[in-house]
Amino acid sequence: MGVECVGWAARDQSGVLSRHEFSRRAIGDDDICFKITHCGICYAEAVCIFNKLGDTKYPIVPGHEIVGVVTEVGSNVTRFKVGDRAAVGAYCRSCGSCDDCDNGMENYCHKLLLTYNYEDIDGTITKGGFSNKMVVHSRYAFQIPDKLSSSDAAPLLCAGITVYSPMKRYGMISQTGKHLGVIGLGGLGHMAVKFGKAFGHKVTVLSTSPGKKEDALTLLGADEFLVTKDPQALHAAGKSIDWIIDTAAGKHDLNLYLPLLKTGGHLVMVGVPPSIEFATHLMLRKRSISGSVTGGCKEIEEMLQFCADKQILPNIEIVPIDYANTAIQRMIRSDVKFRFVIDIASSLK
Amino acid sequence: MGVECVGWAARDQSGVLSRHEFSRRAIGDDDICFKITHCGICYAEAVCIFNKLGDTKYPIVPGHEIVGVVTEVGSNVTRFKVGDRAAVGAYCRSCGSCDDCDNGMENYCHKLLLTYNYEDIDGTITKGGFSNKMVVHSRYAFQIPDKLSSSDAAPLLCAGITVYSPMKRYGMISQTGKHLGVIGLGGLGHMAVKFGKAFGHKVTVLSTSPGKKEDALTLLGADEFLVTKDPQALHAAGKSIDWIIDTAAGKHDLNLYLPLLKTGGHLVMVGVPPSIEFATHLMLRKRSISGSVTGGCKEIEEMLQFCADKQILPNIEIVPIDYANTAIQRMIRSDVKFRFVIDIASSLK
Repeated sequence: MGVECVGWAARDQSGVLSRHEFSRRAIGDDDICFKITHCGICYAEAVCIFNKLGDTKYPIVPGHEIVGVVTEVGSNVTRFKVGDRAAVGAYCRSCGSCDDCDNGMENYCHKLLLTYNYEDIDGTITKGGFSNKMVVHSRYAFQIPDKLSSSDAAPLLCAGITVYSPMKRYGMISQTGKHLGVIGLGGLGHMAVKFGKAFGHKVTVLSTSPGKKEDALTLLGADEFLVTKDPQALHAAGKSIDWIIDTAAGKHDLNLYLPLLKTGGHLVMVGVPPSIEFATHLMLRKRSISGSVTGGCKEIEEMLQFCADKQILPNIEIVPIDYANTAIQRMIRSDVKFRFVIDIASSLK
Repeated sequence: MGVECVGWAARDQSGVLSRHEFSRRAIGDDDICFKITHCGICYAEAVCIFNKLGDTKYPIVPGHEIVGVVTEVGSNVTRFKVGDRAAVGAYCRSCGSCDDCDNGMENYCHKLLLTYNYEDIDGTITKGGFSNKMVVHSRYAFQIPDKLSSSDAAPLLCAGITVYSPMKRYGMISQTGKHLGVIGLGGLGHMAVKFGKAFGHKVTVLSTSPGKKEDALTLLGADEFLVTKDPQALHAAGKSIDWIIDTAAGKHDLNLYLPLLKTGGHLVMVGVPPSIEFATHLMLRKRSISGSVTGGCKEIEEMLQFCADKQILPNIEIVPIDYANTAIQRMIRSDVKFRFVIDIASSLK
């Protein structure tokens, strides 16, 4: 027998969210069920509810930065007990047996099942965290360290891990005293700045909006702010940066940014721009561009512990569920510092 | 007093090469002078003589895969003596004191002076190896191991090092038993196939031309041949390749090739395409794209020794200097297996 849930769903590509009752699958032997208390709002929510990729299966319940308290565990589950806090990020299942899964890179499994809008094992469509309960295979749920509040933990499940994973992969943790550039100052970008400082690097925020300078330097502790519409400033900063974390989701011209990289420098795209065009800046300085999407299960736990230990916390604005439509509109126009988190526990009845 | 030389030069963007007399700078204390015996013909020659980049300074003497015999050494030179063989590749000077130069990456020095078409320290324009004598700072000249003939050595100075350098950087020497893809089967591509096999990898040639299959498999020893115009074959080969060396110089669609890479796979561009467009294939599999151009001085010496030891030799067609115009036309239409080398010693009087 399934688990009766209530959430907020979009019914069509107007994207308007409203109350929606639905069932999740019955709790299997490997599953946990948890009462959702908090859910972050990521830009991917907007992409999906407005059907920007043409694959949205309405009604769609978004949300993939999900935190709550365990209410039930399946008979095989050892990692959680009732009353523990639990979290789920962008995905809720993988094949569990391919090389990627075996190597802690479930996020790159070719059978990856995203937390919403994907066909679940019982044929239903997965539903996200804008809802009151979650049922998930325990492998894809994470313990929250004591020193992290549930509201602070939520954005780490997507915004946090999406920048942490490539930052680790490309040596930003194993090295220190280097120079990191961050493109975009939204949910992902602001976490990249905080991680960059925590890892001991000089951090320069690269932005098209001069108005973000104060936030970058004062609120987030970046060392420098570079307006990418200023050709002179860009030229002066040429070949000065070791890595760029590019969180921009819209189409943007990499030819502006690549010349900022030192010889051998590396740009990592973590947004999902529709397409990217670039020219010879790559070859002539053996620079690299790569892409990355979220992180593996062990990596997510490691990041949560790191954030708890070092108190690397997102800047959040906590809102009730009935503010979700407004919050999404504000997020789209970058009017949030820097991540909305829905207080599900106190607002979704 | 300068060194009187004779070479073959293009006078205008017709690109037609003909005999041309000119002077090189006087032999300085750090320089060597050598009698050129062989010079390879690279696609970059065509780009320059036809002024495809708009920066050609006519008359232009091309050629940057240069081998010869030392005839004179400056007073500070210890690495060469008269009678030694010597070679010069794509560049003939760098600043010698920046981080890149200090770290054996002279090829990425921001003051790099290419072997032709660049302003030399005396204000003259550098002239390449389609000529009878070379004057060069000894740091940028290389000894040829005994087991390499001068004609075989020539193509290694550009085609060889341009693929060897990124192959080493991205772990193709330190690992074995992986899967390498090679795009393009010209001077660079055929060396990439040979290196890939020498390093112990499975090698698949990716080509738009089915007609190259026989050459790839039989002449070069590749393991597989994939026609990239065959959507079914491409799909079947998805996620099977660890690295791709992309030697294509024209505009080409990376979206065809990126899906062939495994999770974490890496494509290195070593041609100089005008621009590159790609989409989400990068992000969803944490794939990388990077660029690379030639190699550092120590790396070139290391590669020459490796090729001598393992007898990794280019397939060449030796031609006289008065065949240069024809050879360039044939090279442009890929009608060479796989590199022309001009026998300067016996044909340029």
